[in-house]
Amino acid sequence: MKGAVVDRDGSTRAAEQRPTPRQPATVEAILAFAADLATAAGTPAAVGLAVPGIVDDTSGVARYSTNLGWRDLPLRDIATDRLGLPVAVTHDVRAGAIAEHEFGAARGVDDFLFLPIGTGIAGTVFTGGRPYRGADGMAGEIGHAPVPVGDELCACGQRGCLETYASAAAIARRYGDPALTAADVVARAATDPRAQQVLTDALTALGYALTTYTMLLDPTVIVLGGGLAEAGDTVLGPLRTHLADRLTWRAAPRLVHAQLGATAGRLGAAICAWSLL
Amino acid sequence: MKGAVVDRDGSTRAAEQRPTPRQPATVEAILAFAADLATAAGTPAAVGLAVPGIVDDTSGVARYSTNLGWRDLPLRDIATDRLGLPVAVTHDVRAGAIAEHEFGAARGVDDFLFLPIGTGIAGTVFTGGRPYRGADGMAGEIGHAPVPVGDELCACGQRGCLETYASAAAIARRYGDPALTAADVVARAATDPRAQQVLTDALTALGYALTTYTMLLDPTVIVLGGGLAEAGDTVLGPLRTHLADRLTWRAAPRLVHAQLGATAGRLGAAICAWSLL
Repeated sequence: MKGAVVDRDGSTRAAEQRPTPRQPATVEAILAFAADLATAAGTPAAVGLAVPGIVDDTSGVARYSTNLGWRDLPLRDIATDRLGLPVAVTHDVRAGAIAEHEFGAARGVDDFLFLPIGTGIAGTVFTGGRPYRGADGMAGEIGHAPVPVGDELCACGQRGCLETYASAAAIARRYGDPALTAADVVARAATDPRAQQVLTDALTALGYALTTYTMLLDPTVIVLGGGLAEAGDTVLGPLRTHLADRLTWRAAPRLVHAQLGATAGRLGAAICAWSLL
Repeated sequence: MKGAVVDRDGSTRAAEQRPTPRQPATVEAILAFAADLATAAGTPAAVGLAVPGIVDDTSGVARYSTNLGWRDLPLRDIATDRLGLPVAVTHDVRAGAIAEHEFGAARGVDDFLFLPIGTGIAGTVFTGGRPYRGADGMAGEIGHAPVPVGDELCACGQRGCLETYASAAAIARRYGDPALTAADVVARAATDPRAQQVLTDALTALGYALTTYTMLLDPTVIVLGGGLAEAGDTVLGPLRTHLADRLTWRAAPRLVHAQLGATAGRLGAAICAWSLL
């Protein structure tokens, strides 16, 4: 869990990181964390919570999270009661996108995709200056768009998902050496043909999915986040080429890496809190 | 060109169809058509024009149309001057989507894809009750999303586009008998293995593209239009199966055919005209 007390200009008064305990202790740990930060840095005007899974921002209900074991948890109401402050609840990837929009790589841009690549791949679709949630809060699941790289089974039960080839976890798994991370595999791609093939599959899958995204949604920018994007031009360079090669009759959107790194989620949560005031 | 004088409840007072003359006579023919309809059915309160190509609804400029030979044509201003009435200009597919939203298959639905399948394939992405244009007016080009059916060259210059396999023109072309239309090919698929293969490729391509659309945008409904959708359950049935088979962890959006047929464009233009008042 990453927490911070943040001023309206985005500057951080206090920040701290804590492990996330398993249920049933999770909610209590979050609330205690928020209370401790408030004590350390002065009571804030509002609180923003960015959580994983499927989240209904409007009602503040954490509808579903495999990792946390939540199901229809009225997190906003619980936190409001306990903390005595206005509380906003949002999705963690959405929070990252909101922060990149306000302070980072998508500043001044209303139409973009925020795509952090980590253990899994989930994006936030920004349209007209706002995150788009879809009919039932499930938009942005580009990680489970099928890509024509193959039909490997994805953890989600589908076959050939982008995430199966291009997530950091997939890159490490497909290389097949448990001692190596995705970053290690990317680093040795220049000299190791097996690593090169795994990276090529990942970039082909991403190039394909981002071409489709561009055709459907005509974004100004695609903001790549997560560890893989931090590999910088080893990843972004070839990906720009893939995208430009596929797109013949329209310009490719700019492809940039996220600027806020691991602070994006907590900054986005703070922006959601400010929006209540 | 299809024209009509339409009341606010969607009922048609007068409707007429005329051939579209080539440039430079096109704009003049449109304006004369509008003036004649106004004479026939009583001067309307406003005029809506739905045109192909790339259209900027806000400025009323027809930015680009291969078929009509337009480039940055200030159509709204020309028509306003000439007709002495408020004029709205929009894209023809967008007009169809707006009409299906107000009077047809997407009534009461805010998040949907309108996908008419004709000579080409271009969709309109409806988000939050409004058509989404993208950063530069090019959203909805799902016809040029790459699909893993093959890498046949598309007229657009890219390879493996959805349109290359699934448009009505592609189905007729890929079957290879110049005397047969796409509807003919679909009709003989049950008994002719070559027709079956062409139809299977089209449905596979569509199933793939619509899976990706669902993952990215979580629509309530997908509204299929054009002649191919009118083949009804020969097309919609297998397509629903494709979509349900690919989506393992979420429900498929409803897949329905458009209700307004060829009147959708002129109804949507009328709705845009009303929105000026």
